Amino acid sequence: MFPIPDPMRRALDAARDAAAAGEVPVGAVVVRAGQVIATAANAPRALCDPTAHAEMLAIRAAARALGRDRLEDCDLWVTLEPCAMCAGAIAHARIARLYYGAADAKGGAVEHGARFFGQPTCHHRPEVYAGIGEREASGLLTGFFRERRP
Amino acid sequence: MFPIPDPMRRALDAARDAAAAGEVPVGAVVVRAGQVIATAANAPRALCDPTAHAEMLAIRAAARALGRDRLEDCDLWVTLEPCAMCAGAIAHARIARLYYGAADAKGGAVEHGARFFGQPTCHHRPEVYAGIGEREASGLLTGFFRERRP
Repeated sequence: MFPIPDPMRRALDAARDAAAAGEVPVGAVVVRAGQVIATAANAPRALCDPTAHAEMLAIRAAARALGRDRLEDCDLWVTLEPCAMCAGAIAHARIARLYYGAADAKGGAVEHGARFFGQPTCHHRPEVYAGIGEREASGLLTGFFRERRP
Repeated sequence: MFPIPDPMRRALDAARDAAAAGEVPVGAVVVRAGQVIATAANAPRALCDPTAHAEMLAIRAAARALGRDRLEDCDLWVTLEPCAMCAGAIAHARIARLYYGAADAKGGAVEHGARFFGQPTCHHRPEVYAGIGEREASGLLTGFFRERRP
């Protein structure tokens, strides 16, 4: 079996942290030149912030760390297919490569719904690699919702 | 001529503040029960944050002020048609009504491109009112870009 790359492993750890905090388990990591420069767990409830998806927090932390609003030399690893908000942020940030785990038929905007990177109004399209660590990422989500929906 | 409602007037003032700071002039206001609870100017460069659109900053400030991640009793007023990122955030925040000024054929995601609120992957659709203060909002943008593109 293909081993899960280290950045996705860390994103999955962050997703587990989210679940432990009662948040939907999604994690994200920003990597630049082989170095992890930001890791984040989904946290809209804890932060009272509807925009606090893992991708958004990781992108914002990476931009703050680098002191600029464009991350064209950075890659984003996230355990779940990004939604429209996060896909939009990925484009605004000029992320070079997007690696994600599980597909999200209900809320995704990369291979579902808005398919944002294919829209003429999208001004930057990252390279996209899907399905990395998919089984573990979707297992975390399934387990989380199963526990909450008796 | 129909007078511009007070929240859009304030959003236009915030857009002017953005322009004065060298940022693309867009402003946003969140209103709850007739009270302005957040006002924000577009600031991705100043904040080193690619997600720092006016709508995002206003929504985040409003959620922080109310201590919750859903704003179902709030309306958002913004001078420009929201992009996919901001439309996604508006849906996540459960904003009741969206009022915007100028349409954005190049980057908008309400009546252009992704038309996000019409997607099956969009889980909340605000009431949408477009074209409010449109002439002034688009005039600010046109002036800003004309000055910068000799």
